[in-house]
Amino acid sequence: MNDRFYLSLAINEAWKYQGLTYPNPAVGCVITDKNGAILAIAAHKKRGLPHAELEAAKAALSKLNPLLIFPSEANELYDFISKNHNNLLKNSTFYVTLEPCSHQGLTPPCAMLIALLGAKRVVIGSLDKSEKAKGGAQILKKAGVEVEEGFLKDECDELLKPFLLWQEGSFSFFKLALRLDGTYDNGIITSHEARVFTHEIRSVCDLIVIGGETLRTDNPLLDARLIEGKAPDALICTAKDVEKTANVFHVKNRKVLIQNSLDFPKQYKNIMVEGGSNFLNVMSEKVDRFLIFHSCDFSQEGSKRVEIDLKLKLLYQGFIGNCSFGWYRK
Amino acid sequence: MNDRFYLSLAINEAWKYQGLTYPNPAVGCVITDKNGAILAIAAHKKRGLPHAELEAAKAALSKLNPLLIFPSEANELYDFISKNHNNLLKNSTFYVTLEPCSHQGLTPPCAMLIALLGAKRVVIGSLDKSEKAKGGAQILKKAGVEVEEGFLKDECDELLKPFLLWQEGSFSFFKLALRLDGTYDNGIITSHEARVFTHEIRSVCDLIVIGGETLRTDNPLLDARLIEGKAPDALICTAKDVEKTANVFHVKNRKVLIQNSLDFPKQYKNIMVEGGSNFLNVMSEKVDRFLIFHSCDFSQEGSKRVEIDLKLKLLYQGFIGNCSFGWYRK
Repeated sequence: MNDRFYLSLAINEAWKYQGLTYPNPAVGCVITDKNGAILAIAAHKKRGLPHAELEAAKAALSKLNPLLIFPSEANELYDFISKNHNNLLKNSTFYVTLEPCSHQGLTPPCAMLIALLGAKRVVIGSLDKSEKAKGGAQILKKAGVEVEEGFLKDECDELLKPFLLWQEGSFSFFKLALRLDGTYDNGIITSHEARVFTHEIRSVCDLIVIGGETLRTDNPLLDARLIEGKAPDALICTAKDVEKTANVFHVKNRKVLIQNSLDFPKQYKNIMVEGGSNFLNVMSEKVDRFLIFHSCDFSQEGSKRVEIDLKLKLLYQGFIGNCSFGWYRK
Repeated sequence: MNDRFYLSLAINEAWKYQGLTYPNPAVGCVITDKNGAILAIAAHKKRGLPHAELEAAKAALSKLNPLLIFPSEANELYDFISKNHNNLLKNSTFYVTLEPCSHQGLTPPCAMLIALLGAKRVVIGSLDKSEKAKGGAQILKKAGVEVEEGFLKDECDELLKPFLLWQEGSFSFFKLALRLDGTYDNGIITSHEARVFTHEIRSVCDLIVIGGETLRTDNPLLDARLIEGKAPDALICTAKDVEKTANVFHVKNRKVLIQNSLDFPKQYKNIMVEGGSNFLNVMSEKVDRFLIFHSCDFSQEGSKRVEIDLKLKLLYQGFIGNCSFGWYRK
């Protein structure tokens, strides 16, 4: 097994949490020991939780010393690992999809931690060009760590794309749920697990966008009730009047915007678009990515079908609760 | 990383070749060294090619001694490795989805090889219950190798299912190719790479089954021309007369059977069924598994849709040439 294999494991692990990490990038990290044995495969899961490198260091140390009891809060974890690593990760290699951060954000800088742990080598996919976090590779090199940059760069840049778009303004994606045969309807299509996952993604979006047709036929809540998460603000794109009795208006701590235009209001950065065939036709040129779920069912009851000419490229394929899902781009 | 992780890698690798290994089972093998570093992830790819264990031993030795030049023929490879392993795999662990074989088939017994290489431990998924190949675990134990049996048994048994059904009579699967939106038509749906893969699978089937409707509307060759492989015999299930001018009759070294019944003739063991909505409706109760390809396209041109009530369970999800494919069961 080689660098490509280990970094690919990190990329794959990071994609599992794509859509959940806003405003942070989806990042994966694999640690191997001096003999090349994998000690950890980890990813950043959510804002406020440990960065991928810290998650991986925890998993690796836990494997090497099962008696260690780690604090769960990210800053305490960083501090604990700094003091209790016992050189167990000396001469290890870190494979990270993104350059380790150099700054004190919600958590302290990962580059410092990796240097402190005595890693021999760090293989980096994308370089971090953000003003506040860049420079991690420099810190590592100064500490005498061997650094390789730009490894599997295209794959890592693709993984990083939503983060880059947030920096520039906003990232938007169209979420679609279909049966295996392409049908959908107003009822539930995907499994409970897949819907929980969708609500987790919704809960970190700041805006959810639907068309007037979905509002009138589905009357959805568009909240994150399955995980008791925060509902994003809602934007209804319609030329018609909207009844204020609709469910979408009766969710706490959420604004509802109604407009006769398809432009996303500028104050929102992480935008989920939901809908069926008509809204996909209207929005397919505007969104950056597509998140498409497929259940494993065929159904003669499913009367609605998507009608659009659209050629996509599959970026990552996942599986949750007997549903497959893919992140696609044009 | 633990036994579950390593054996899962082996299972996943084996699934990539499901459908291609007839009459042999799809088997995967991972080798780790005494420190737990992965030395090889391999699978049995095709009848006559090395078994998974032999493929893995070759890959592992090649990694440890890049100067070794291996013969490609399976028996010569077995012999070469027996003489040139130089104890490089001493104290390694083998993870195999199926008990290593104990018999001389087209290739010599894998259990003997693993013992000879000085493996410390072998973790086995399914036990081999076939009369001719069983007993590998016994050989290993007698040689002092630590053996764990029945690890991730359910997953490994599922992987092995086609092989078990061949022993009992026949294994059949329905192959379907759809766009992302569930549409299909008489033209080409999937990528060249996906079609090459399908022809590789066809070339090891002994029978391909279609309905009269497919014959009349598609007039398919049903051969394996994309890989210059052997075309399977063809069975056309129809109550109507069939024109002998159809393409299916003009493929070398193939029999064409026509019958007004859906029963598979008993002399065939590895049976691929192809068709659209109507034939899937007719055949869904008769076939053992489903192999469904999805391209990444939506198309308004695709006028045909599958209409059936069918709930499936996804067993393995793969990706080839921007098409995803899944093996499903009911």
